Amino acid sequence: MIEIERKFLVKSEKFISKSFKKTQITQGYLNSDSNRTVRVRLKDHQAYITVKGKSNEAGTKRFEWEKEINYEEAVQLLKLCEDYIIDKTRYLVEYEGHLFEVDIFHGNNEGLIIAEIELTTENEKFEKPDWLGVEVTGDIRYYNSYISNTPFKQWK
Amino acid sequence: MIEIERKFLVKSEKFISKSFKKTQITQGYLNSDSNRTVRVRLKDHQAYITVKGKSNEAGTKRFEWEKEINYEEAVQLLKLCEDYIIDKTRYLVEYEGHLFEVDIFHGNNEGLIIAEIELTTENEKFEKPDWLGVEVTGDIRYYNSYISNTPFKQWK
Repeated sequence: MIEIERKFLVKSEKFISKSFKKTQITQGYLNSDSNRTVRVRLKDHQAYITVKGKSNEAGTKRFEWEKEINYEEAVQLLKLCEDYIIDKTRYLVEYEGHLFEVDIFHGNNEGLIIAEIELTTENEKFEKPDWLGVEVTGDIRYYNSYISNTPFKQWK
Repeated sequence: MIEIERKFLVKSEKFISKSFKKTQITQGYLNSDSNRTVRVRLKDHQAYITVKGKSNEAGTKRFEWEKEINYEEAVQLLKLCEDYIIDKTRYLVEYEGHLFEVDIFHGNNEGLIIAEIELTTENEKFEKPDWLGVEVTGDIRYYNSYISNTPFKQWK
């Protein structure tokens, strides 16, 4: 399937009190090349392998394929992943009829908070909550695959 | 699981008449880095995604994880793979109580024939059929992941 999404930094933690769901995510990359990423993710008690293709120029559209896999096997696969493993807490927030996924990063990415909104079409309009910061769609530094190689704390 | 195997070149096509099964394999790599390969394979009418770890020094042992996936989805994933896609015909041959998988490569790997024997322990003894050639276990040029980047016809 094709995934259409836009990505933003987050200005404040006000979104936490609006969130209706919170999940724990641990993920690593078997390939962090942006032409074809291969991600292994633990999400609470479930596990997935996900392949994503190259983004379009605007960074909004991307082929994505995902399959649920055995949790214990995923833990083994994480050991094969490139440095570093990403830990984050994901908050789901509904705002004016749209769903935002907001990730608070931990460990060597402490300080980074990213919100994503999944859209049906590239030009779909949506309202911006006041905690939403600057748009970073298409900026490869905010790809999790990039962050996994170059943690936020190493950024200048 | 850990896969233990040894690999040989093949001197003649005599093995074909001894084979009890023949399958058509098309495969590509989402990552051909020998530290962690990610392979997508079509095998007759089935499809698999396979992750392999780094080999031990002798090249005999390797972590391997495989999962069957939807055929049509695998066809999409093959389009994301690195150059080049590998086509080969696999013959299963039993010889003196051991199973050999013998691959005749096609297309830009025409001329290459490789036999593999899967073993239970690294030191397990087995009889060599007369069509078996020189051992190439651990020689990375004969890894399918290497062949996928550097087809046999390009070798000097």
